[in-house]
Amino acid sequence: MQQQNLKGFRDFLPAEKRKRDFVAASMSKTFQKYGYEPIETPTLEYASLLLGKYGLEADKLVYTFEDRGERQVGLRYDQTVPTARFLGQYQAQLPKYFRRYQIQNVFRADKPQAGRFREFTQCDCDIFGSTSAVADAEILAVYYATFADLGLSSLVIELNDRETLLATLSPFTITTVDVFSIIQSIDKLDKLSEPEVIDELVKKGLQQTAATACLVQVKNSTISSNLKDIVQKAISLGVPAENLKIHPTLARGLDYYTGMIFEGKIPEYTVGSVGGGGRYNNLLKDLMDFDCPAVGFGIGFDRTVEAADQLGLLPSAPSTQVLVTIFDESPESITSSLEAAQQLRVAGIATEVFPEVDKIGKQLKLADQKKIPYVLVIGESERAQDQVTLKQMDTGEQTQLHIEAVIERLA
Amino acid sequence: MQQQNLKGFRDFLPAEKRKRDFVAASMSKTFQKYGYEPIETPTLEYASLLLGKYGLEADKLVYTFEDRGERQVGLRYDQTVPTARFLGQYQAQLPKYFRRYQIQNVFRADKPQAGRFREFTQCDCDIFGSTSAVADAEILAVYYATFADLGLSSLVIELNDRETLLATLSPFTITTVDVFSIIQSIDKLDKLSEPEVIDELVKKGLQQTAATACLVQVKNSTISSNLKDIVQKAISLGVPAENLKIHPTLARGLDYYTGMIFEGKIPEYTVGSVGGGGRYNNLLKDLMDFDCPAVGFGIGFDRTVEAADQLGLLPSAPSTQVLVTIFDESPESITSSLEAAQQLRVAGIATEVFPEVDKIGKQLKLADQKKIPYVLVIGESERAQDQVTLKQMDTGEQTQLHIEAVIERLA
Repeated sequence: MQQQNLKGFRDFLPAEKRKRDFVAASMSKTFQKYGYEPIETPTLEYASLLLGKYGLEADKLVYTFEDRGERQVGLRYDQTVPTARFLGQYQAQLPKYFRRYQIQNVFRADKPQAGRFREFTQCDCDIFGSTSAVADAEILAVYYATFADLGLSSLVIELNDRETLLATLSPFTITTVDVFSIIQSIDKLDKLSEPEVIDELVKKGLQQTAATACLVQVKNSTISSNLKDIVQKAISLGVPAENLKIHPTLARGLDYYTGMIFEGKIPEYTVGSVGGGGRYNNLLKDLMDFDCPAVGFGIGFDRTVEAADQLGLLPSAPSTQVLVTIFDESPESITSSLEAAQQLRVAGIATEVFPEVDKIGKQLKLADQKKIPYVLVIGESERAQDQVTLKQMDTGEQTQLHIEAVIERLA
Repeated sequence: MQQQNLKGFRDFLPAEKRKRDFVAASMSKTFQKYGYEPIETPTLEYASLLLGKYGLEADKLVYTFEDRGERQVGLRYDQTVPTARFLGQYQAQLPKYFRRYQIQNVFRADKPQAGRFREFTQCDCDIFGSTSAVADAEILAVYYATFADLGLSSLVIELNDRETLLATLSPFTITTVDVFSIIQSIDKLDKLSEPEVIDELVKKGLQQTAATACLVQVKNSTISSNLKDIVQKAISLGVPAENLKIHPTLARGLDYYTGMIFEGKIPEYTVGSVGGGGRYNNLLKDLMDFDCPAVGFGIGFDRTVEAADQLGLLPSAPSTQVLVTIFDESPESITSSLEAAQQLRVAGIATEVFPEVDKIGKQLKLADQKKIPYVLVIGESERAQDQVTLKQMDTGEQTQLHIEAVIERLA
C-alpha cells in the first residue's frame, strides 16, 4: 500500500521549499536589522498551558494527547502563549525591553480547505516591556521593511486605534451585546457590505437605527492623537506616508488589543491580508499573571510566499549552477571530473557530480530535468589540453576553456 | 502558578538560538554548494507509517495519539522513514538521481538525560538512485565540507565496509547469535575494552576462543577494493587523505547498511561522534516497497553546535550593532534619533531604538545587558552641528561625527 501524507499537512518539494527558505531567511535578516533576536520554544507544551487561552471554540482546535508519562500535552497552537510562558520563566535573564522574533510551525485541528492547513508557519515579531509610541512605530517600521526587503514595497498598512473604537462603540452596547461582539461584526466590513453588517448587528439584538448610527459614527470617528503620533514616528523610521492608511472601521477580531491595531495588504495580491497586529498591554497579565506591555505582529507566511511568488520575486531555479558529467569509466576521466567539481566548490559555485558512468545525453537530461544552467564535460581531448567544455543549457552554447576561466565566469 | 516547559524539551534563548541558526545556515549553504536540495515533510504522519519501522524497542519511543478525526497519528521520529514515503509519493516528479537535505526536529519519548532530549534537530543528507562509488565519495566530500566550512576541518572520518564486516563475521555466527548481534557487540569497541566485548560475545553464546578469534580477524581484515576506490575518489573531491581513516572494527549499530559505513569525530571534542552514515541499498525497498539505492548521513546537530561553540567558532555577540538612544522628550530629539536609526538600517547596520525617554545611563545599561557594541547619542549640541555621538561600549571611547561617517565605520 502506498503511504500518503496526512490531509491538511504538506510536503514541500525542493522548488517550493527553496522559496519558503528564501522568504524565511529574508525575514530573519530584516528582523535582525531592526534589533530583534531569535528565540525558539518547543513543539510540545503542557496542555494546561494551551487550553483555556484562546476561547472555547479554539480549544477544540488544539492538538492534545496524553504522553507515555501520563502528562496531558499539546502541540504549539500559536507563538504568543508559549512566548508568554517563556517571558515569565526567563524574566531574570531577559532585558527589560525585549525584542524577539520567532518563525515556527503551529498546529490546528481545523477542517482543511483551500489555503487552510493543520500545520503552518507563523512568523511573529514583538517588543515587550514598553508602552511608548516609539515602540509602536518601531513595530510598524520593521513590519513594512519585512515586506519591502522582499520586494513587496507596495504593502499598505491599514491602521486604527482600538481605544477610539471602544469609545465610539461603547454607547451602543446593550445587556446582550457587548462591545467585542460589535467589534467582531465591524471587523467583517472587509468581506461583507454595510447593510449585511447592519443586519448582523440587528440579529445580535441592536435596534436598526442604533446599528446604522454605530456604523456611521465608526466611519466618521476622528484619528486619535496617539495614532497620529505613531504614524509620524513611523514615517521618521522610513515607512512611506502613502503606505500608511488610517482605516476607522478596521477592528481586528481578537479581544486583547488595547491601542494601535493594524493589518497589511499587498494591492497586487487579492487573496487577503498578509497579517497584522497591534498593541496588547494586558494579555500577558491575563494569560500568565506576568505584567508586561507588548506590541507586535504576526505575518501570514504562506500568503507572503504566495504573493512574492506571484510577483516573480522568489528564486525559481535551484541553487545548483553546474552539473559535472563523467565522460567515460577510465580512472583519468572520473578523477578529472571529481577534481573539477572540487575546484568549482572551493570557489563557492554550487556543483553536482553525475554519479554514474552513462551516455552524455542522459547526463544532460538530468541537468535539464533539475534546471541546472551549466554542464561541464571533460573528455580525452579536453584533458589533453588541460581544459573543460562548458555547455550553457538554455542556449546550447559550448565553450572549451580552462577551469579557472569557468570559475571566473560563474563565481 | 508559574508554568514551565516540559522535561526533555528545550527553550532556546537568543544567545543559543543565534548559534544554532548560524550552524543550520552554514550547513544549508554547504549542502547546496554540493548540489543538494532542501525538502520538508510534516511533523505529523499516519502512525502506521512510523510504527514497525524502527524495531520493537523504538516503537515505544514514537509519540503516537488519536486525533479528533479518530486517525492514529505520530510525531516525526526520524527523517528517513518520512523521506521514504516522500520518495514513493512523488517519484514521478523527482529526478532519477535525487540529492536532498533536511534539517528538522524529531521526537522521541525517551528518558531525558544529559545530552538526550525528547525533541531535537536532525540534519540529513542523502543521494538516492545511484549505487556508484562516486555517490559514496560525494557523500564523504559533503560530510567533510559541512564541518570544514564551520571551521571544524580537524574532523576525522572513520570508515569501514559493512560487506567486509559481514564476510569476516559470518563464519562466527551460531544458531542463537546472528551476524547483526555480533556487529552490535563489535560496535561497542569505542566504549568498551576488547576483553569486555569478548565477554559480551561469550555471554551471548559464543565460545571464548571464537569470540577472541572473531575480534582478531575483524582487526586484521583487509580493506575492500570498494572502500579503497571510494577513499581515492573522496580525496579527488577534496577530503584530505589524513582525515580519512580506515577503521576495521567500526560497525555502526543499525542493521540496514549494505556497503560503506562511516562516522565522524572531532579530535578536540571528546563527547563522542558527531554523526555518520553509509550506504543502504535495501532499506527503502524493505520500508516502502520502493526499490531505490541510497547513501547518506545524519549529523548530530546538538553535538556539532556544542563542538563548534567550544572551539569559539560561533557568534557570541547579538547581530545588533547599534543602540540609538533618545536624548529627551522633545519632538526634535525623538525625530532625529528615529531618522538616524533609519539611515543606519538602510545601510544594513542592525540597529535598535531605545523605546522610552529615560536617563542616558539607563539606556547605556540596556546596550551593556544586550551586549550591543555601539551606542548613538544625539543631544541638542550634536543636532546643532548635524552630528551624532558614537560611543564604543567596550572601550568607552566617544566620537562626535556625521551619521555618514558612522555608517562608513560600521557598515
